[in-house]
Amino acid sequence: MYGFKNSKEKAFSQTLGFQYYFIGWAPLGDIHCIGKDNGHKHNVMYKKAMINAHRRIKPHIHHTPVMTSRLLDEMVGAKLFFKCENFQKGGAFKMRGAVNAIMQLSHGQKEKGVVTHSSGNFAQAVSLACQSLGIKAYIVMPSTAPQVKKNAVMGYGGMLVECEPTLQAREQNAKHLVDTKGATFLHPSNNLEVILGQGTAAKELLEKRPRLSHVFAPIGGGGLIAGTAIAARHFGSSCTVIGGEPFEADDAYRSLESGTIETNRTTNTVADGLKTQLGDINFPLIQQGVDRIIRVQESEIITAMRLIWERLKIICEPSSAVALAALLKEKGAFQGEQIGILISGGNVDLDQWPF
Amino acid sequence: MYGFKNSKEKAFSQTLGFQYYFIGWAPLGDIHCIGKDNGHKHNVMYKKAMINAHRRIKPHIHHTPVMTSRLLDEMVGAKLFFKCENFQKGGAFKMRGAVNAIMQLSHGQKEKGVVTHSSGNFAQAVSLACQSLGIKAYIVMPSTAPQVKKNAVMGYGGMLVECEPTLQAREQNAKHLVDTKGATFLHPSNNLEVILGQGTAAKELLEKRPRLSHVFAPIGGGGLIAGTAIAARHFGSSCTVIGGEPFEADDAYRSLESGTIETNRTTNTVADGLKTQLGDINFPLIQQGVDRIIRVQESEIITAMRLIWERLKIICEPSSAVALAALLKEKGAFQGEQIGILISGGNVDLDQWPF
Repeated sequence: MYGFKNSKEKAFSQTLGFQYYFIGWAPLGDIHCIGKDNGHKHNVMYKKAMINAHRRIKPHIHHTPVMTSRLLDEMVGAKLFFKCENFQKGGAFKMRGAVNAIMQLSHGQKEKGVVTHSSGNFAQAVSLACQSLGIKAYIVMPSTAPQVKKNAVMGYGGMLVECEPTLQAREQNAKHLVDTKGATFLHPSNNLEVILGQGTAAKELLEKRPRLSHVFAPIGGGGLIAGTAIAARHFGSSCTVIGGEPFEADDAYRSLESGTIETNRTTNTVADGLKTQLGDINFPLIQQGVDRIIRVQESEIITAMRLIWERLKIICEPSSAVALAALLKEKGAFQGEQIGILISGGNVDLDQWPF
Repeated sequence: MYGFKNSKEKAFSQTLGFQYYFIGWAPLGDIHCIGKDNGHKHNVMYKKAMINAHRRIKPHIHHTPVMTSRLLDEMVGAKLFFKCENFQKGGAFKMRGAVNAIMQLSHGQKEKGVVTHSSGNFAQAVSLACQSLGIKAYIVMPSTAPQVKKNAVMGYGGMLVECEPTLQAREQNAKHLVDTKGATFLHPSNNLEVILGQGTAAKELLEKRPRLSHVFAPIGGGGLIAGTAIAARHFGSSCTVIGGEPFEADDAYRSLESGTIETNRTTNTVADGLKTQLGDINFPLIQQGVDRIIRVQESEIITAMRLIWERLKIICEPSSAVALAALLKEKGAFQGEQIGILISGGNVDLDQWPF
């Protein structure tokens, strides 16, 4: 069961095309409702919202393949199913959420364009989605982002605005574009339409493999794993969601421990997509829908990435490999199970090769 | 139209389960037959043989995917369809030919095992096929082969016999194993059953994309492109076959020029799978079924490989990238066409990264 703060709830009810009301935020199993809503309806609404999101974005995204490897199965002692979002348009799952959110904008909003800040993949996704839909995209990106990601944004026709690699600098630059251009800000992970779009990757995986007992996903800003939690609940059968996170950017792990959104004390990780922190929309979804978070060392990320490259013969980025690294670290707990692993993206700067 | 020397023809007729006879070897369009055979029947026999080979090996191989990339299409100015044999069992197309040839052995031959020499991928394929079929595999491999390929052979249960990186050393070691163990020698490319198996990759591609005007394949020992030539003739519609070859190992190009099998003067190429030379079984097939061979520089191979990694998000080995490199080099001649490209394998030693 999921709940919202009032401010978010209204936007969500508009998405669904009908109204419901809460009294504030309440923890799992303790939601007080007024009017015609209740916990069951809430679940139904999430399910419907994701089904609608999936239907909406389908013409604009790839239905990505699910890959397996006998050797990796033997190494883990379980049956692994890799959902390959590295083959998604724009090279990452982010296209799903970007398309869903942009398609939900009003005609007036679309005319003035959108602005986002991103460590890379969401920037590409927004640029590509806007190119397809004929909408202007302003992309605020840290100057330290891989060149391959900057090139891709420009290649898709996005207007690149580089800034210092801090959350504050990103937000200031984005706000300036909202103020001066009238563009609509799209948050890469703390936006319910984005979250619902990202969750369709796990929805597709579970539709193909309904008996998965666990789905592993990396945690950066929290959009993918929050959407995955919704998908697992509504399209899985007793499927739990487990996050993988670098020790060097373990804000989500500490947030679950403390019960409040924590910031990263360091972001010295090869997993450049996982340096961002959770937000007030995805955090409650993660609290309620994510079973646990397993933290991994940098060397474990690189080992997992190399295994994916060598065994699956696909390019994944370091952030993607964190999910497999987490499973490998605690494989003893998952013997004989059917496990889904989200390969979140494949945008690697080959000049920065970590092996 | 294809023809054989008498010695090969008999083996082929046994494969097909009926008999036919030639009087020696004759160039295209000038085959003299006795008995009940003629040129038309010949073609039918090849077609049937490949259909049978495909049916035989299907339970033991992957039906690999065909991938596309809008960006690569734009770069070339044509519509490209990549047949991804890097996802084949054992990491390369070689599994197809190995399985076909081994399944055609007699019970007595299977009991004594098989021996082969290979620069890598055929070795893995024979090991894996033998593991599946419960047959002993002796693998002669140059000591300079990538460690990842040696490890894979041993991982599949093959008995690895390392030798000097010369054709002579390989052949001597293989002969010794035939003499002492009674094992049957399987040539990695100059064996008709192997060639027919390799051709099923292009057969699958053409069944999915019947309007391809050209299929590009790399040329090493000649097995893949000879099989591709048979497939293009019988399962394509006016589809020509074009080879890609490194300048540093251009024996096939020079063989087509001179009309006799030439040897490599140098093999100083990153495409480690293409250092071998043609044989007397595949050369006539290549002469008749391959439209032309385009030679490429080492830097062009690496550029093409990087494009495949970055754009298709898949791992291919340098030998595989030679086909795309050849197309990129002469792309002006292929504008607006539908083109198949065989990604022959993905067994890269990541420690030897060439970028």
